[in-house]
Amino acid sequence: MEIQVAVAKVGKWATSESGDTLEMIERPHGGLSFVLVDGQRSGRAAKAISNLVARKAVSELAEGVRDGAAARAAHDYLYTYKGGKVSATLNILSIDLTSGTLVLSRNSQCPTIVFTPDQGVRLLDEPSDPIGVKRGTKPRITEVQLAAGTMVVVYTDGLEMAGARASRVFDVPAAVRELVAEGNVSAEQVVNGLFGRALALDEGRPQDDISVLALRVVDQPGDGVRRLALRFPL
Amino acid sequence: MEIQVAVAKVGKWATSESGDTLEMIERPHGGLSFVLVDGQRSGRAAKAISNLVARKAVSELAEGVRDGAAARAAHDYLYTYKGGKVSATLNILSIDLTSGTLVLSRNSQCPTIVFTPDQGVRLLDEPSDPIGVKRGTKPRITEVQLAAGTMVVVYTDGLEMAGARASRVFDVPAAVRELVAEGNVSAEQVVNGLFGRALALDEGRPQDDISVLALRVVDQPGDGVRRLALRFPL
Repeated sequence: MEIQVAVAKVGKWATSESGDTLEMIERPHGGLSFVLVDGQRSGRAAKAISNLVARKAVSELAEGVRDGAAARAAHDYLYTYKGGKVSATLNILSIDLTSGTLVLSRNSQCPTIVFTPDQGVRLLDEPSDPIGVKRGTKPRITEVQLAAGTMVVVYTDGLEMAGARASRVFDVPAAVRELVAEGNVSAEQVVNGLFGRALALDEGRPQDDISVLALRVVDQPGDGVRRLALRFPL
Repeated sequence: MEIQVAVAKVGKWATSESGDTLEMIERPHGGLSFVLVDGQRSGRAAKAISNLVARKAVSELAEGVRDGAAARAAHDYLYTYKGGKVSATLNILSIDLTSGTLVLSRNSQCPTIVFTPDQGVRLLDEPSDPIGVKRGTKPRITEVQLAAGTMVVVYTDGLEMAGARASRVFDVPAAVRELVAEGNVSAEQVVNGLFGRALALDEGRPQDDISVLALRVVDQPGDGVRRLALRFPL
């Protein structure tokens, strides 16, 4: 089997940088973790917050701390550092090779979308608080078997608010359903599909920071080579 | 302008994991850093070492510590932790947006290869010690302007030793020269070109862990979107 991950990330129109931070780190017992943080508001202040939170979560995960504890640590750290006055959303998506699962940890109002060939598209959307503002905040954690055909989509609220003025117009789960219905769709195609639609709704000028991550488990004999490709506009 | 980065990484044939570790982290003042570590020997023990070193370097860089100090800290940490008995090579490649440069930090016998349209291919190959074994080890640091057309290639010794039995047969700098002579070659093409040649020399069974990273500065108006794609064989 092989895992494919694709991410796209853009800042709010006319701000110098995105307030979202995405980091990736190897897990010492095998596998990888992705940490996605959306800091309150946008621009430089939001970036400083999301950076701080992502760094805390990543440094815990890098030392082998389990995902739930890393998310709690990130909350406690932000809560302490900012006196409960600044919030952030936090998603951790881990490929855990010891348990053979995807571990999905969520502190966000945005759902995590999971597709499996058996169950189709389902939403992980139990009520979940952002971190930083309410003492004792915990993540919602779901484990999903590492099985071929599985797809997971995680995003920040800039995606689902794209094009929204009075009310929400972008139904992200419906868009994912359409995309996976085409069969054998890659992680990159899902990200590009969702991202393209959001940019179109925002008429090319994102009204908020937007980040989308898709992960897909593919049933193909890989060549054993790990590959990474990155594009970073200056 | 846009920066493209490509990485490929494979473990020694018939070992469970690569002893090389590559990590990527955002710089708090803007930009990205890549940390590539090759732990002594191969397999699980090497992986534990390279993980430890990469984690140390990454956590320093994430806190805004300058590259030279992060490399020194990684050395001191390994030297202290393992009593000077275990070595590792360490490369840090940073896109530093505050200075507008690429910062290349090197503790490895392998050269770093730099191509610029003006100067062609040159090697950063001053004598440089691996970290962990000699008190006070320092990195070699070179800064290169972030200018369109620039290409940087960093790799671990498994690449240049591919196919070698008695003596070295793979001239990596010559291969890079050939690849860039074709003009307008992407980071991914350079990585695939080098990697493919190494695997062919090793007859598809790498005799050591091999990692290759290529970075290219491209003069094209990006769409402002950062993109990441990853393939991770299980």
